[in-house]
Amino acid sequence: MSHKWLLEPCFAIDEESRLLAREHQAQLTKPPGSLGILEGLAIRLAGMQHVVQPSAQRVWITVFAGDHGVAAEGVSAFPQVVTGEMVRNFANGGAAISVLARSLGAMLEVVNLGTVNDPGELPGVRRAIIAPQTHNFCEREAMSVAQLDAALRAGADSAAAAQAAGAHLFIGGEMGIANTTSAAALACALLGESPVMLAGAGTGLDAAGIQHKASVIERALALYPGDDDALAWLARVGGFEIAALAGAYIAAAQMGTPVLIDGFITTAAALAAVRIQPACREWMFFAHRSRERGHARLLAALEADPLIDLGLRLGEGSGAATAVPLIRLACELHGRMATFAQAGVSGA
Amino acid sequence: MSHKWLLEPCFAIDEESRLLAREHQAQLTKPPGSLGILEGLAIRLAGMQHVVQPSAQRVWITVFAGDHGVAAEGVSAFPQVVTGEMVRNFANGGAAISVLARSLGAMLEVVNLGTVNDPGELPGVRRAIIAPQTHNFCEREAMSVAQLDAALRAGADSAAAAQAAGAHLFIGGEMGIANTTSAAALACALLGESPVMLAGAGTGLDAAGIQHKASVIERALALYPGDDDALAWLARVGGFEIAALAGAYIAAAQMGTPVLIDGFITTAAALAAVRIQPACREWMFFAHRSRERGHARLLAALEADPLIDLGLRLGEGSGAATAVPLIRLACELHGRMATFAQAGVSGA
Repeated sequence: MSHKWLLEPCFAIDEESRLLAREHQAQLTKPPGSLGILEGLAIRLAGMQHVVQPSAQRVWITVFAGDHGVAAEGVSAFPQVVTGEMVRNFANGGAAISVLARSLGAMLEVVNLGTVNDPGELPGVRRAIIAPQTHNFCEREAMSVAQLDAALRAGADSAAAAQAAGAHLFIGGEMGIANTTSAAALACALLGESPVMLAGAGTGLDAAGIQHKASVIERALALYPGDDDALAWLARVGGFEIAALAGAYIAAAQMGTPVLIDGFITTAAALAAVRIQPACREWMFFAHRSRERGHARLLAALEADPLIDLGLRLGEGSGAATAVPLIRLACELHGRMATFAQAGVSGA
Repeated sequence: MSHKWLLEPCFAIDEESRLLAREHQAQLTKPPGSLGILEGLAIRLAGMQHVVQPSAQRVWITVFAGDHGVAAEGVSAFPQVVTGEMVRNFANGGAAISVLARSLGAMLEVVNLGTVNDPGELPGVRRAIIAPQTHNFCEREAMSVAQLDAALRAGADSAAAAQAAGAHLFIGGEMGIANTTSAAALACALLGESPVMLAGAGTGLDAAGIQHKASVIERALALYPGDDDALAWLARVGGFEIAALAGAYIAAAQMGTPVLIDGFITTAAALAAVRIQPACREWMFFAHRSRERGHARLLAALEADPLIDLGLRLGEGSGAATAVPLIRLACELHGRMATFAQAGVSGA
């Protein structure tokens, strides 16, 4: 295996910057603690960025797209052709994540890891084609070790591009019909949880559809009893885009770029990343609580407390992008409010 | 009484725009409903603004400041002089709401309704002085009918200024040492609730301080048994800034400007406004769940489900300002995403 890079250490958090940022917060003209979670956001970012006044202005978003052989089992409300169609929609600026990236002034990259309906060369889309789709993971491993390696490295390449662009924050998004099935299978394997607990509606299954989806996952899990090796499970039931996300999260943490995790699928990838390289957990912020059924369980496993809870379940990194302004405002408040001394305001 | 204007009808919601906006949402390239609460935000705003594509770009913030005679009872962790000092801090751009308004590109007005420590004329501060402070409401009514009228009208003046500036959204904020005591007293009176249930830490009281605060409210409530008239209670235990907020909310709804309610104090004012003019409820969005103890009860009484829950308890309108980007992104997504037909994406 050529996955050794995954075990390289993560970038160091600067405890002194974190401490100084905490002291600075305590001097701002407001009741102590009254900015709640926003205070801690700025303080954590200070430690990551090795500065007292952190920033979240430059945001990098990569949407990884890939198709899933397990779509053949009828586990999605949408046809498989949509993955490639949506890659084109990303490129044309019409998808939710395209609109959000424009509104935020964020850098948006799309990485096509392989779609059955291939949209070809498109502006803003990096082609890193591994195969038209993964294998149907009910029947055999979703991908080979070499394919897993390629997906992980594609993710790391995006993290490197984000760092080269000076990104303060890395967001990974995903597109791939049937990928909530893949993410739920991965989550079940890593958490020892039953598919009926983690399989959800995805893009819009009804109760019978969800039950069928759980049974599909059950079949896959039964192929590999008694083993929770995260890399092995990424190959067995993962998707190219899910493996790429895991690779991106680990690489970003190694390079010192904070990551903002989106919803159910990206959190499954984040859990795999943390199982592979536990130190990357410290570099993760969690954006939102998805309405997708299994997300709460994944968040609990990662001891994650997301910023927003708006009933989102769209994917593409859209929930993470939606939370970006909150992190930016946390930094602005931290950096621009007057202290009691500066403003001549009396203390408690 | 010259409060007749409060009972004038509110602006009409345009049901056709709302319906067309709902139909438009259903055609966007995403699983139906997957943008959760953001979808409903855009649809509600469409009805209010009488357009299919609403906007939240132009945001108006008024911070109403006023001092409270009840501060003499020792109910705040901060000295009364801070109200005037903070008015100066607003004007100088160092307060949380100043930073947020700049970051959002929002219009910020400060209205000084009367502070014991008078900061005088300041840029960006409108003087609408009613008195240096309210009376100590444990001893007598906080304000006269004429003073209440002046406060309500000061609020309506700000709503009119917001409308004249073409604001898509009106935010009211407040500053006034001891005003969580006033707001809690008002909430107890309107809800028939016990002070120990609604009195909270405010700017940082300990348990004994909160108990004392509750006993102060208890004394005031005992002066006026068996009556829940909202206008009367605004005069009895309100603050100039709280009455101004209520006046602003009603006037904004009458003029057709949606309002975004902040935290505990503004929600108490919103409840008073709704009791006076029930139709204004439809024009209210609720920004956040404050950590201040009584807020949850007030939100429940108004059947309000706020957008964010970040442990904020700063006031000044800061929680509402923090939520503005979410409403803006809801509008951007609604207005700029491609439809399935436009993007050539297959349906479910």
